[in-house]
Amino acid sequence: MLLLAVKAITESNRSFLAKYGVTVVTPDTVTAEQIPEIVISYAWDDVIGKQILANPDSKLKWVQTQSAGVDYLPLKSLKNLGVVVTNASGLKAVPIAQTVLSYILYFARGLNVYASRTHWEPFSNQYLVSELPVLVFGTGRIGQQIAANIKAFGGTVYGVNTTGRPVVGFDEVYSITNYQKALAKSRVVVDGLPGTPRTENFFNARFFEQVNQLFLFINIGRGTTLNQDDLLAAIDDSRVTYAALDVTTPEPLPKNHPLFERWQVLLTQHTSWGEHVNAGRTGGLFSILEKNLPSFVADGTIKQNVVDLDHGY
Amino acid sequence: MLLLAVKAITESNRSFLAKYGVTVVTPDTVTAEQIPEIVISYAWDDVIGKQILANPDSKLKWVQTQSAGVDYLPLKSLKNLGVVVTNASGLKAVPIAQTVLSYILYFARGLNVYASRTHWEPFSNQYLVSELPVLVFGTGRIGQQIAANIKAFGGTVYGVNTTGRPVVGFDEVYSITNYQKALAKSRVVVDGLPGTPRTENFFNARFFEQVNQLFLFINIGRGTTLNQDDLLAAIDDSRVTYAALDVTTPEPLPKNHPLFERWQVLLTQHTSWGEHVNAGRTGGLFSILEKNLPSFVADGTIKQNVVDLDHGY
Repeated sequence: MLLLAVKAITESNRSFLAKYGVTVVTPDTVTAEQIPEIVISYAWDDVIGKQILANPDSKLKWVQTQSAGVDYLPLKSLKNLGVVVTNASGLKAVPIAQTVLSYILYFARGLNVYASRTHWEPFSNQYLVSELPVLVFGTGRIGQQIAANIKAFGGTVYGVNTTGRPVVGFDEVYSITNYQKALAKSRVVVDGLPGTPRTENFFNARFFEQVNQLFLFINIGRGTTLNQDDLLAAIDDSRVTYAALDVTTPEPLPKNHPLFERWQVLLTQHTSWGEHVNAGRTGGLFSILEKNLPSFVADGTIKQNVVDLDHGY
Repeated sequence: MLLLAVKAITESNRSFLAKYGVTVVTPDTVTAEQIPEIVISYAWDDVIGKQILANPDSKLKWVQTQSAGVDYLPLKSLKNLGVVVTNASGLKAVPIAQTVLSYILYFARGLNVYASRTHWEPFSNQYLVSELPVLVFGTGRIGQQIAANIKAFGGTVYGVNTTGRPVVGFDEVYSITNYQKALAKSRVVVDGLPGTPRTENFFNARFFEQVNQLFLFINIGRGTTLNQDDLLAAIDDSRVTYAALDVTTPEPLPKNHPLFERWQVLLTQHTSWGEHVNAGRTGGLFSILEKNLPSFVADGTIKQNVVDLDHGY
């Protein structure tokens, strides 16, 4: 069977695929005759993807995306064709969670003050991680990794998901429609929501009206889930003390954007995925495909990282 | 029996002491007649301390210091008088270790780059904690807490102590005279050495000659253990990439000191002890006295945090 490798694969990846009878084509070398024969798309290419979906004889059965979010895919068409989509959820959970912890410790341990201080003036108004309960919106792989890291510091961590169903590693989990009790006892909020129509603009003026001197607001989810103007207003009237954003709207942010100008805001420019061994934004992606391939070849089943195409995550 | 409270104690501390027949005097109220009657000194006051030691009839039996290091005490006189010294080791291990982790994550996750960036220019040359093995000089309470935090991130942590005896929580422990194998495989060095004649100037040009592009040098031990000029030279010739120092020589550092001027250096001005619940540099100190008091009153024994007056830690 044919696999379209939109993202680069190594020689050892190729050998692994060959063992299961999978042949690799790339966007540069794929021919018009091969397009309907593609069974697996390893990452998504918009141009070739459209050609595949437009072909009534397409054999496409499986798309492994290069990202955790899948909001840029033609989800309806894929669903109608019975294509299974698996995402990269969990792939960068460890680096992203470490960036979240770096944010919390940066502000908690006073590094934000010391980073630019060029004279002796001690600042001891510091917090332990355990003194700053954390509320994480999103209890998937990234949320769970954040929770594990917070707990390792003896901290308290609450989660929010659609239904409020318990998730291992969180002290308590609340539903997205009834999280206020958790918010009232939290000092840090982490926006780890996926980008869906329901989450768009979720963190807006109405949300920020509910907090007062929230120590830190973090966004490592999607830029679309946060109303940045409302966040800036909340900072300006002390509802929120500090903010750390990995994702923003738009990206890149234009010169002189107010987010660059607020000393209370730390921006990491969509690089929370950074690591060395599995370098690059999709480094390590093949390991997810690798887990699903044997059962897919054997009987067509795919178990890991399957996206619900109705919910979009 | 009489206790001199050099550091403030609360009403509930007083009630606890009263239960054991201990009466409190303070430096402000103590009379000349009371000075030789003092049995316990809770923290050390240099002026009254000298008066106590000068009195041949002194009943002093126990000094609970306000610090982990005891290098400022008249250790020989105390030893000759058979006084037991207990230190505050462990008291601030949790906050200090969290500051150490904040340093590592600050440089590893690129916050040092982003803290001052006012335009869009992504920086993804980042590390996971597990990609930066850590070598901690000093395997006492603070070193052990650092090790636990590193391990919780899936990291690797080596320790150095006098003899190389194994300590729980470290992957391997080396002796202070034979640590080179560990240094060769480490990317972060933490100076957590106590201030003793043997450790003075330990991290000097000879030490830094052994490293090349060491990712991060940290000092949370004593300023005297580090030759700062040699560290600056090592930074300037790329033997050391970044440094984070909580302790320095002198404190405060004078204006325009070169440590303030190097962008590679982060200074936290001897505030790594900061926390909220047990606020202040000696916040929580009474809990150490509290643990030793019952056995001391019963039969004169003191078990926790006893200092070896020959070694000075």
